[in-house]
Amino acid sequence: MSNVITLYDIPAASIKDRAWSPNTWKARFALNIKGIPYKTVWLEYTEIEPALLKLGAKATDTKPDGRPHYTLPVIHDPSTNAVVSDSYAIAEYLDAQYPDTIPLFPKGSAALQAGFVRALQDLALSNVWVILLPATHDRLNPGELSQDYFRRTREARFGKTLEELCPEGKERKETWGLVRRGWSLVDGWFKKNRDGEGDFVIGKEVTFVDVFIVSFLLWFKLILGEDSEAWKSVLTWDEGRWGKMLEAFEKWQVVV
Amino acid sequence: MSNVITLYDIPAASIKDRAWSPNTWKARFALNIKGIPYKTVWLEYTEIEPALLKLGAKATDTKPDGRPHYTLPVIHDPSTNAVVSDSYAIAEYLDAQYPDTIPLFPKGSAALQAGFVRALQDLALSNVWVILLPATHDRLNPGELSQDYFRRTREARFGKTLEELCPEGKERKETWGLVRRGWSLVDGWFKKNRDGEGDFVIGKEVTFVDVFIVSFLLWFKLILGEDSEAWKSVLTWDEGRWGKMLEAFEKWQVVV
Repeated sequence: MSNVITLYDIPAASIKDRAWSPNTWKARFALNIKGIPYKTVWLEYTEIEPALLKLGAKATDTKPDGRPHYTLPVIHDPSTNAVVSDSYAIAEYLDAQYPDTIPLFPKGSAALQAGFVRALQDLALSNVWVILLPATHDRLNPGELSQDYFRRTREARFGKTLEELCPEGKERKETWGLVRRGWSLVDGWFKKNRDGEGDFVIGKEVTFVDVFIVSFLLWFKLILGEDSEAWKSVLTWDEGRWGKMLEAFEKWQVVV
Repeated sequence: MSNVITLYDIPAASIKDRAWSPNTWKARFALNIKGIPYKTVWLEYTEIEPALLKLGAKATDTKPDGRPHYTLPVIHDPSTNAVVSDSYAIAEYLDAQYPDTIPLFPKGSAALQAGFVRALQDLALSNVWVILLPATHDRLNPGELSQDYFRRTREARFGKTLEELCPEGKERKETWGLVRRGWSLVDGWFKKNRDGEGDFVIGKEVTFVDVFIVSFLLWFKLILGEDSEAWKSVLTWDEGRWGKMLEAFEKWQVVV
């Protein structure tokens, strides 16, 4: 196992198999779909920056104070000694480096997928994070290593407490309404595939846009809890499309 | 010629061949790419609603006062007696009805294209219309039939005069900066096609997203004027990608 890819991920003991992050799930689904052997190394939030600096990983973002922001997922591939940050770049790397595996960006689809992902982020994900971020906090490992760090950094970034960020009552209901409308727009795009059976965006073959969608759905399910009213409601949206997509991904929903 | 499709379009005598509207150009490009015979019937703005009511065309939008808003393009296909409103729906209709012509939505691409178009609208087109709308007014046929109607309806909708709408000086420069950044994002999506040569979104084959992009580029060029500083600047963006796309469409840039 020493010569396989390492996937760095953030653990939450409250979640089955510990993996909860939609971004690291994107990388894990990519590896699982392609059947590329890998192992997971778990890093609490405060361990990410030192580990990634040591590894020579690229930062993906900039902190409010201007310093580089190191995030997961990151993979290290010992066969090439490549260290790749960011789930999108990881999927692209795996496609390029392992051309005999299932392509997540089939020829001709990469530009279309990039535009689709952008629209998905802007319309289906731009409203939900105010609910999901505080709920994610509650699921992380308690204490300074993760939960406290997560609260402190997010509250500094948004200038309000996680409790202030999270809409309640009527406002929460309205927020879910916006989220639902966003996903219904995406459902409308799926319906444009008049000729296509299959649960995926291009029909029967899985691509990166499906990985993107399902990783966020899985985040909703894991963080909200599968018995929560909110998640049960998501399952009723758009003739059950989102639950069906998650089911189609079950065979790849494996943590190693 | 009596048995060919009719494309309804809005004329502007100040524009070569009269055709200037990005939306009707989408339908015209679709017909030209597919090589489907058609003729154009020109309707001044005030003639659109009565003609479309007579034809039984669907409204595509709602006016500020709640009444249905009839817009072009519309096509009438005498072979099926179908009347189709909206450029997107026209392209879908032509794909379905004429399956032996070049498909604008190749199998598996329709959902991806829908998301891509949405992102394109939100990022590349959402800032430019405040400049292009007043400039379009100036190019329309003068008088009550088109120019006056255009001004009156747009000013009622936006609650300001076309002159107030249009940014000038520093603000105009900033607006063009936003427009340029939007198109650069789209350029970044094109660049994801690492394996693809060709000027189009999926590589060498033209699809509806290309028709969409080029129709708006052509609007910029026709309305701003090809000798304008603004259009010459667009031609320098993104290593000349947009000028090259227009060139690749020249063979379909035909008004019949």
